[in-house]
Amino acid sequence: MEFSSKLIEKAVNEISQLPGIGKRTALRLALHLLKQPKDQTVFLSQALLSMREDIQYCESCHNISDQAVCEICSNSNRNHQLICVVEDIRDVMAIENTGQFRGIYHVLGGKISPIDGVGPSQLNITSLVNKVKEGLVSEIIFALSSTMEGDTTNFFIYKQIADCDIIVSTIARGISVGDELEYADEVTLGRSILHRVPFEKSLKNN
Amino acid sequence: MEFSSKLIEKAVNEISQLPGIGKRTALRLALHLLKQPKDQTVFLSQALLSMREDIQYCESCHNISDQAVCEICSNSNRNHQLICVVEDIRDVMAIENTGQFRGIYHVLGGKISPIDGVGPSQLNITSLVNKVKEGLVSEIIFALSSTMEGDTTNFFIYKQIADCDIIVSTIARGISVGDELEYADEVTLGRSILHRVPFEKSLKNN
Ligand SMILES: [Zn+2]
Ligand SMILES: [Zn+2]
Repeated sequence: MEFSSKLIEKAVNEISQLPGIGKRTALRLALHLLKQPKDQTVFLSQALLSMREDIQYCESCHNISDQAVCEICSNSNRNHQLICVVEDIRDVMAIENTGQFRGIYHVLGGKISPIDGVGPSQLNITSLVNKVKEGLVSEIIFALSSTMEGDTTNFFIYKQIADCDIIVSTIARGISVGDELEYADEVTLGRSILHRVPFEKSLKNN
Repeated sequence: MEFSSKLIEKAVNEISQLPGIGKRTALRLALHLLKQPKDQTVFLSQALLSMREDIQYCESCHNISDQAVCEICSNSNRNHQLICVVEDIRDVMAIENTGQFRGIYHVLGGKISPIDGVGPSQLNITSLVNKVKEGLVSEIIFALSSTMEGDTTNFFIYKQIADCDIIVSTIARGISVGDELEYADEVTLGRSILHRVPFEKSLKNN
C-alpha cells in the first residue's frame, strides 16, 4: 500500500498489528476516526494507555483487577476453599454471569501450548499448587476449554496435586468439544459448573 | 458485560466505538495489548493521536496529505486538466496502483446519502464546480462506486457543470454493479479508466 501521508501510514501500520485486523480494515478504522470528532481518538488513546500502564493483577487469583486483591477474592461470603481454574478474565466473566459459582477463581493466564511457545513457567501454576499444598483448598474445578492445550494444562497441574487430599473436578462437558468457553450460552455453562465431574472420571471417558 | 477492572472496561468501551468491532472483539484486542510489550500500546496510541491532530488535506484535491498541496497535485508531469472524481483516499490509492492515470484527483470525502445524513454541502463539491467554471478543466472522470448514492452524487455534480465546455465521463463499468471500487482488481480497474465513457452515454445505457 502506497500512502499519501506518513501520518495515516503509521496509524494503519500500528492498527494492523492487532490480531485479525489487516491493512484494509486498519485503513477503514483510521478513516473513521478522521471523520469523527477529535475527542473520540483522544479518549481511545488515553483509555488504551492508562489500561496498559496501570493495570493490576490480583495477588491471589491473578485476575485483572484495580486493587491488590480483587473483589471476588476479598469477598468473605464466597467459598475460598473451592477454586475454579480458568484461562483468562473472559472465562471469569462468563462463569460469574451464570450466577452458579460461589467459590473463587485462579486465572492461569493461558494454556500450555508448545506451538505458541507457552510453557508452564509462563502461566500462574506454581501459586495454585502452593495454595493446595498449604491446605487452603478443598476442591479444584478445571474450567479450561476442552482442547488439546486445555487437557494438557489440566493434566500438568493434576500430576502435581494428585497426592493431596482434595477433590479435583472438571466442568461437565455439556459444551461441545473444541468450543471456546467464552462463547457458551449461560444455561449450558451454568449446568457444566453444577454437574462437574471428578477429574479421574473425565479421563476414563476420553 | 461486568468487568473486574474499570481500566479494562473503559478501554473495551472505547475500542468498541469503532465500526464493526463489538464488545467481545474489543475485549480480545485489549487482552492482546496487555500480553504484548508496553511499547506496542504506546506506539499505537501515539500514532492515532498524531494522525488525528496533525492530518492535513490537500488544498487543491482534498486528499489526505502531509503538505498543503499533495504530491500528485504538485507534480507538473501530471495533466491538471484531467480530474478524476473519487470518494476517498482509498480510491486514490487503488487508481494510482493501476498506473493507468496521469491526471489529478478530486476527493469528495463521501457520497450524497440522505439515509446517512450526508448532503452535498458536507462534500467537497463547490471547489470542483469552481475549478470547472474557472476554465481549469478539460475533462472530468466520475469514479464513484456504481451504487445509488454514487449515481446520485455524479448526477448532482453533472447538473452544475453540464453547460460548461468540458468532457464528462465515467469509468467503464467493467466493475460489477454494486461492488466497492477499492476491492476491484488492478486490471479491471485500470481498464475501466482507459475505457471511460461519456457521461451522457452511461445514462442511456441504464
Ligand atoms: Zn482475586
Ligand atoms: Zn492534491
